[in-house]
Amino acid sequence: MEKGYIQVYTGDGKGKTTAALGLALRAVCAGKKVYFAQFVKGMDYSELKAKILLNNLDIHQYGTDCFILNNPTEEDKRIAREGLEAIKKILSKGEYDVVVLDEINIALHYKLFSIDEVIEILKNRKNHVEVILTGRNAHEKIIQLADLVTEMKEVKHYYEKGVQARIGIEK
Amino acid sequence: MEKGYIQVYTGDGKGKTTAALGLALRAVCAGKKVYFAQFVKGMDYSELKAKILLNNLDIHQYGTDCFILNNPTEEDKRIAREGLEAIKKILSKGEYDVVVLDEINIALHYKLFSIDEVIEILKNRKNHVEVILTGRNAHEKIIQLADLVTEMKEVKHYYEKGVQARIGIEK
Repeated sequence: MEKGYIQVYTGDGKGKTTAALGLALRAVCAGKKVYFAQFVKGMDYSELKAKILLNNLDIHQYGTDCFILNNPTEEDKRIAREGLEAIKKILSKGEYDVVVLDEINIALHYKLFSIDEVIEILKNRKNHVEVILTGRNAHEKIIQLADLVTEMKEVKHYYEKGVQARIGIEK
Repeated sequence: MEKGYIQVYTGDGKGKTTAALGLALRAVCAGKKVYFAQFVKGMDYSELKAKILLNNLDIHQYGTDCFILNNPTEEDKRIAREGLEAIKKILSKGEYDVVVLDEINIALHYKLFSIDEVIEILKNRKNHVEVILTGRNAHEKIIQLADLVTEMKEVKHYYEKGVQARIGIEK
C-alpha cells in the first residue's frame, strides 16, 4: 500500500475543520475508510450527521459540550485521554486509511495530553495511514514531523460584522 | 430566511477546494441544498462521486479535461461561459442555499469571463444564498465584495518530496 503522510491545517483563519471534512468526503468517495476524531468539541455539530449519510466514515467526539476557556477541567482531560487511547489503537492497527485528529492542536495547547505522547503515536502508525491534524497554534514538534502544513490566514472575517456561527455553515 | 454571505478561499496553500467540499458536506448534513460548480476543471476527480452519495448535492464541471497552461482555448472559454450562465440563473433563482464556485478565481485570472460580469451576478443573487469562491490569485474586486476571506498559506508541502496528487486525497 502507498505511504500515508501527515497533514496539518493550522492558523487563525476559517476552514481548518472544514478542509478536514472535505478531505474525509473525497476519501470516502474514493472508497477509503475514514475515522474523524473531534477533540475538545462535544457540541452537536451538523457534520455529526455525516456518519449516517456516508458509509466508511466514522465521526467520534472526545470533548465536553462547553468550550475550554482557561483551565481545562478533569473531565476535559479524561475525555481527551479517552480519545488519545482510541486513536493510538486505530493508528497502530491501520484499519482506517485516513484518520482526522480535529482540534488536536488545541488539545495540545491546553495540555490535555503531552506532545511527546502524540508524536510517538503518530510515528507508530501503520505506514499507509494518512493523518490530518487541525487546530490553531500547532506545536513546533508537530510542524517538524508533518509532511504538509497549511496555515489558514484570516484576511477578512464576518464575525467583525457581528455574524454568529450558523448551522450548516460554521457548525 | 437568513442572509447569505460571500466567502473566499484563496492563496497558494492546499485546502481551498477541500474546504469548499467540507462546507458542502456540512450544509447537506444540515438539510441545505448545495450546488458545486467546478470551473477550469474537467478531470475525473473522486469528489464527483459525492453527488451520488449525497442527496441535495449537485456537482457540475465547467472545464475541459486538460489544464490551461498559458493561453486558454476557445473551448475553455465556451465551457466556462456555459458555467457562468448556469450560475447566473441558479443565483438569481435562489433554489440552492449554498453555491460553490470552485476555481472561479483561476477562471477570472485567465479572463475566461470578465470580473465585472461575475460581480454583477453575485450582487444579483437571492439574498439568502451563501456563495463560496475558491482559487488562488483572487481578484481585488472579489476580495472587496466578500464578507469572509481566508488565505491558505503553504508552510510546508510534500510536493517538494516528489509526492504526486493521489486519488482520494488530492483528487
